[in-house]
Amino acid sequence: MGLVVQKYGGSSVADAEGIKRVAKRIVDAKKSGHQVVVVVSAMGDTTDELIDLAEQVSPIPAGREFDMLLTAGERISMALLAMAIKNLGHEAQSFTGSQAGVITDSVHNKARIIDVTPGRIRTALDEGNIAIVAGFQGVSQDKKDITTLGRGGSDTTAVALAAALDAEVCEIYTDVDGVFTADPRVVKKARKIDWISFEDMLELASSGSKVLLHRCVEYARRYNIPIHVRSSFSGLQGTWVSNEPRGDRKVEQAIISGVAHDTSEAKITVVGVPDKPGEAAAIFRAIADNEINIDMVVQNVSAASTGLTDISFTLPKAEGRKAIDALEKQKAGVGFESLRYDDQIAKISLVGAGMKTNPGVTAGFFEALSDAGVNIELISTSEIRISVVTRAEDVTEAVRAVHTAFGLDSDSDEAVVYGGTGR
Amino acid sequence: MGLVVQKYGGSSVADAEGIKRVAKRIVDAKKSGHQVVVVVSAMGDTTDELIDLAEQVSPIPAGREFDMLLTAGERISMALLAMAIKNLGHEAQSFTGSQAGVITDSVHNKARIIDVTPGRIRTALDEGNIAIVAGFQGVSQDKKDITTLGRGGSDTTAVALAAALDAEVCEIYTDVDGVFTADPRVVKKARKIDWISFEDMLELASSGSKVLLHRCVEYARRYNIPIHVRSSFSGLQGTWVSNEPRGDRKVEQAIISGVAHDTSEAKITVVGVPDKPGEAAAIFRAIADNEINIDMVVQNVSAASTGLTDISFTLPKAEGRKAIDALEKQKAGVGFESLRYDDQIAKISLVGAGMKTNPGVTAGFFEALSDAGVNIELISTSEIRISVVTRAEDVTEAVRAVHTAFGLDSDSDEAVVYGGTGR
Repeated sequence: MGLVVQKYGGSSVADAEGIKRVAKRIVDAKKSGHQVVVVVSAMGDTTDELIDLAEQVSPIPAGREFDMLLTAGERISMALLAMAIKNLGHEAQSFTGSQAGVITDSVHNKARIIDVTPGRIRTALDEGNIAIVAGFQGVSQDKKDITTLGRGGSDTTAVALAAALDAEVCEIYTDVDGVFTADPRVVKKARKIDWISFEDMLELASSGSKVLLHRCVEYARRYNIPIHVRSSFSGLQGTWVSNEPRGDRKVEQAIISGVAHDTSEAKITVVGVPDKPGEAAAIFRAIADNEINIDMVVQNVSAASTGLTDISFTLPKAEGRKAIDALEKQKAGVGFESLRYDDQIAKISLVGAGMKTNPGVTAGFFEALSDAGVNIELISTSEIRISVVTRAEDVTEAVRAVHTAFGLDSDSDEAVVYGGTGR
Repeated sequence: MGLVVQKYGGSSVADAEGIKRVAKRIVDAKKSGHQVVVVVSAMGDTTDELIDLAEQVSPIPAGREFDMLLTAGERISMALLAMAIKNLGHEAQSFTGSQAGVITDSVHNKARIIDVTPGRIRTALDEGNIAIVAGFQGVSQDKKDITTLGRGGSDTTAVALAAALDAEVCEIYTDVDGVFTADPRVVKKARKIDWISFEDMLELASSGSKVLLHRCVEYARRYNIPIHVRSSFSGLQGTWVSNEPRGDRKVEQAIISGVAHDTSEAKITVVGVPDKPGEAAAIFRAIADNEINIDMVVQNVSAASTGLTDISFTLPKAEGRKAIDALEKQKAGVGFESLRYDDQIAKISLVGAGMKTNPGVTAGFFEALSDAGVNIELISTSEIRISVVTRAEDVTEAVRAVHTAFGLDSDSDEAVVYGGTGR
């Protein structure tokens, strides 16, 4: 039996009862003969409460101090979890990100992990302890300041520790049973995926699936750490994410892994752009200089009569205002006619490694949408993904139609087990 | 202008408004030309809430993890305070006890400071920052574990940093205007003391005055750091605690510094102890082996007829049960007749360096109590203190009578300014 890293999110340790339940699960893993390292997030709404406090004292909290503040949340949950484990008669020690050797760059609020030097964790394990580590946090290499890793940081902490400790598996415990072929809140017949490749999972994550973040999957792929996403409320097997299905598990690679959707984006269309070299570059330089992340970009062929073309792109709604402002400033220089902003859109993506060798997939995707009466506004593809933009109001119907068309619907009439808390 | 260390307690930073008010005061000190180091406690009831959580997951929380948990409280308040200061346009950085170089022994929950190596604080100050330091916490020398200093730990942190940084003064901000000649809640005419010697302050602290704890005053005396106890709600001068009145302040040493009282103790009387060598030792060995702190001890001469004597001592009420149990076990061995436990007592103490040279003080003290009809049950004295034990119900009358008899009453008819929050 080897070493396992387990990660529990804030909803799993939301209160004393949750902490005690998680403690029991951890002890079970230890009893089964594993060395156990646990990464834990802040309890429930703690982080939001701390952010609220920060906003009360300062409209723009300083990065260094904001990180110092937020890391208090994991300090509380990890200490309580260690106490709860010791109360079950097993030895446990909690460690901050810094103590666990999570070394980052100095970009506060969204630091990147540079190195992991888990000497103290190794010692604690060798002495028979269960090691509890604060997720989401590290210490900067140059200044020795406390940093946080940004969204999904605890998952990344878990995978990074699993890599540094050469763990068998990184188990990500959450409030759903695993990764599904579609969001079960939208598609009642969505099926839990038993195994999915890193590549497909990366595409799902960047297409709107929220179970795992892209960054965490990317880290796991780089170090080839199998991830097991599963529920902290049930004892069921969840979804394995790895290079290959594990030897003792016969899982056929599906042609299509799943359907993802994303309603968090908006679309900006730059209308009447002169169709000559350098115009598109000027537009996207203005966007990039404002550190705005864009997603899909589409340019149509220009109408021969006018020599003008339209360029459309999608971006997070939250950055829409900033992008419009940046582009307006460039209007005279670039020479476009007008801007159109539209945040009533949805992105629907079909993901699957099988697309590479199944040329019919794209056609089937468009046919399914067409049959459902869903109009396509933008299209973008990669080797293993097709994404389209539709009206936001069509998203549910579109996802269901595609899910059914590609035979992803569950055979069972039973409702899919989704979540354990009703949250 | 030199360096000042300011310490703010939990009631001063209980909410966002309090934090902003304190930030303004700190910035004022910085603007007046000082280098400023601030030690801060956890916000309001944070520590109690964390203790409550700990008790929910484990009846006897492990020391190491308990310290990890509790130190989250100061992490929150210090980060918020640094943000609030930066919001006023001044540079501030917060530091954990560990980052500030507060090195302790490994006794969790009541660690002692072994050394202070404030290199990072010095650097932050030299770069023009206000340094905010978490009170109450440190890091253990051998294991590098997070420790807490126990009751009054933040005051001790402040004094220890002041010593290590060679500060001009350690300002302890609290919700009262300073140290008073008696508890103003009991004696309406109590006067604020402008200056008091370390020695007298030590005696007041061990006699029930709660403004400063003995441990913090002892540390300040050892390193000769003047303490200025003052209100964080008013701008008034408070009480200076130092070896000598400061050169520019002409303050005459009072004969009597003040009257302290303490209702937190109980009295145990061991009845019928054989009056022979070793009996008292056996009794107090049993107490000491159970790590029970005792305060006053009185043994009367034995009655010649029986060869038996009674031994009485006082101890914190909270340890009464443990002491009785320990002594019951020794009953046969020691050979006493019975135990009497009484927690309806009060201790009243008169403190003042002037006692050494004013032999009438003791007599005046007893007379004042006698005139007030207060019966004395035990007496204990030091060079600069007389303490008596009385019935708990007599404490208010006793303190007032003594306060008046020694001319400590304020001349003013106005109510003494006490506290700013009504708490």
